Amino acid sequence: MDSAIDPEKLAKLAEVAVNVGVALQPGQDLILTAPMVALPLVRLIAAAAYRAGAGVVTPIFADEAIALARYQHGQDASFDRAPNWLYNGMAEAFANGAARMAIVGDNPMLLAGEDPAKVARAGKANSLAYQPALAKIAGFDINWSICSYPGEAWARQMFPDLAADAAVHRLAEAIFAASRVDQPDPVAAWGAHNAGLRKRTAWLNGKRFAALRFTGPGTDLTVGLADGHEWQGGASTAKNGVTCNANIPTEEVFTTPHALRVDGFVSATKPLAHQGSLIENIQVRFEAGRIVEAKASKGEAVLQKLIDSDEGARRLGEVALVPHGSPISQSGLLFYNTLFDENAACHIALGQCYAKCFVDGAHLSPEQIAAQGGNSSMIHVDWMIGSGQVDIDGIGADGSLEPVFRRGEWA
Amino acid sequence: MDSAIDPEKLAKLAEVAVNVGVALQPGQDLILTAPMVALPLVRLIAAAAYRAGAGVVTPIFADEAIALARYQHGQDASFDRAPNWLYNGMAEAFANGAARMAIVGDNPMLLAGEDPAKVARAGKANSLAYQPALAKIAGFDINWSICSYPGEAWARQMFPDLAADAAVHRLAEAIFAASRVDQPDPVAAWGAHNAGLRKRTAWLNGKRFAALRFTGPGTDLTVGLADGHEWQGGASTAKNGVTCNANIPTEEVFTTPHALRVDGFVSATKPLAHQGSLIENIQVRFEAGRIVEAKASKGEAVLQKLIDSDEGARRLGEVALVPHGSPISQSGLLFYNTLFDENAACHIALGQCYAKCFVDGAHLSPEQIAAQGGNSSMIHVDWMIGSGQVDIDGIGADGSLEPVFRRGEWA
Ligand SMILES: [Zn+2]
Ligand SMILES: [Zn+2]
Ligand SMILES: [Zn+2]
Ligand SMILES: [Zn+2]
Repeated sequence: MDSAIDPEKLAKLAEVAVNVGVALQPGQDLILTAPMVALPLVRLIAAAAYRAGAGVVTPIFADEAIALARYQHGQDASFDRAPNWLYNGMAEAFANGAARMAIVGDNPMLLAGEDPAKVARAGKANSLAYQPALAKIAGFDINWSICSYPGEAWARQMFPDLAADAAVHRLAEAIFAASRVDQPDPVAAWGAHNAGLRKRTAWLNGKRFAALRFTGPGTDLTVGLADGHEWQGGASTAKNGVTCNANIPTEEVFTTPHALRVDGFVSATKPLAHQGSLIENIQVRFEAGRIVEAKASKGEAVLQKLIDSDEGARRLGEVALVPHGSPISQSGLLFYNTLFDENAACHIALGQCYAKCFVDGAHLSPEQIAAQGGNSSMIHVDWMIGSGQVDIDGIGADGSLEPVFRRGEWA
Repeated sequence: MDSAIDPEKLAKLAEVAVNVGVALQPGQDLILTAPMVALPLVRLIAAAAYRAGAGVVTPIFADEAIALARYQHGQDASFDRAPNWLYNGMAEAFANGAARMAIVGDNPMLLAGEDPAKVARAGKANSLAYQPALAKIAGFDINWSICSYPGEAWARQMFPDLAADAAVHRLAEAIFAASRVDQPDPVAAWGAHNAGLRKRTAWLNGKRFAALRFTGPGTDLTVGLADGHEWQGGASTAKNGVTCNANIPTEEVFTTPHALRVDGFVSATKPLAHQGSLIENIQVRFEAGRIVEAKASKGEAVLQKLIDSDEGARRLGEVALVPHGSPISQSGLLFYNTLFDENAACHIALGQCYAKCFVDGAHLSPEQIAAQGGNSSMIHVDWMIGSGQVDIDGIGADGSLEPVFRRGEWA
């Protein structure tokens, strides 16, 4: 398999992950979680982290065979257990200044054949246990980043007609291109990319639009923006003062919609991969922020279950702008992975909003965020609504219109 | 490589590790540390643990390439860092009832080419960080066990003249024989073996010797035994009530020397593999329990550093009896690994004593243990002093002598 993955580009990905992604500081410890299959990248990242002056690098590997062993042999009570001690330890490390990196790349369909009730219980137990550590990541207390590795199972899911080697090669090249490590100086390329995204967020934050209106085939949707919303994109600065790129890759600028001010109808422009199912041709109608009608040509039951998760699941927590010409969009690939797919098109997300997408969001209470229109939910599911045929206008507080996107590109 | 390791015996080793070694209880969580190379055994152990009713099994892997990356690329300050958070988390898990398993099998010479000062600093930082978790293991709060996997680098170290496959095969068969999984019913074989060891400890505990005197080539050492010492061997019962075999394999019976009552000189009968170095022909003189002179024909600097780790590092924490005819001794192999080599010969250990080697040790405070002669230290390093030419006499409280070993065998 190794020959399918360009070793030079993989080494550059490790450099980008350490120096652009998590932006590891001299003396800072690093906690790194990864699927076992990503071991070659973990080794390169550890070396890059030590070159960058890491304190100690601690990798925690998840093995798919061991995960499956629980479903094959575990007693019923096992599915309500989680390694709380490990996550509590991580929370302690973050409180003491450690940085966090995660590598994705495991088999997206690993648990597709297992009892969904057990999968849900194990997932819930794990989420609860992870809460103390996740709070410090979601609260942006520390610098963190996610990047990806072209695991074979993931590659075969994306390219079912190719041999394993060819599939891994295709996925690897797609990851490298999207992560800008196919360029001669990836760190400089990320500097330029971040500057470009910053120009967009500065312009949008200066405009303070009251709403965005999306129009295109099957779409006429007005998305009100939350009071005191702030646009984010590319590099941003954690509370520990470190400016990092939390997602490698990233193409989006994004902010918080107003949970009560979304009206009209919208058609998805790509299938939505959700918990092992593909939901196709989604069409949804909003009234006063709430989904009042939802259809899909395939997977409609999954869609209905999703929007019935809780009250906030029928409302928006994110709106994001991605030009149709972005490299991931131009690849034409469906990655079955939000880290990539959300960067292929303008999207909205059902569910939870981000505190950092408010002016001074770090100091707002959940009550204040709700009062300004921020949605809350257990879920956050991104969902593509952009294409080369979609226009976007900004609507000012006085009702004035200003072009934002024309035919899928910045106006 | 897989074909070099008998899959049936490896599966039996996993069963022995779970059901004889750690004796995992239904509903009990398991924390498992292993070198990356032992992944096939970790997977079998995870499956066996779930079959035995495990709560959740959490493997933590150590990768040799990542360990080396620190020495190749790390800044100087890195060598005083350790993942305290991970060990604090383990201590929390043990306090909440989790069991502990460790697999050895990595390259014993991994760090042989690295700066010994950095190796020592990293080892010390790690020992300090591990202290809260180790206290619960050394205090036998929970059931725990160590077993081993025939990693290739280890095998090549032991069999430098063989091809990799043949070396792994030889080591695998040696591990399987020593771990009694080459027998038709390994669990029954362990029952019989434990009964034999129990007979020896019962005899020694009945005798209540004040000291043991070792005599042989280059050795005349009187090892005073701690007040209220208790001989242990084979299966024993942790404070949580679970009877486990902490070492797979084990051939020794052992107890606590008196930290202030060791006098004379002693010559090692085998090289000591320590942190990637081989220390050869150790000769040491004790006065009133303390090493006052230490020499070695090779690795003397490493030895000096070791006994300078802390005050307790110059005193004994264990004395152990192993007949020269034990299967591991008879194999004639030097394993470069304490788990095996300490079961090839009588040995002493520098450093920390075991609370369980005291009568009612579970209820003694550290102060009481110290008052009875128990040593304390960050280190515990076993070191072979037995051979077919060594005699041992028990010295009674009244000064009477009684033969214990003659020419390396039980008298
Ligand atoms: Zn997004
Ligand atoms: Zn999102
Ligand atoms: Zn021992
Ligand atoms: Zn020992």
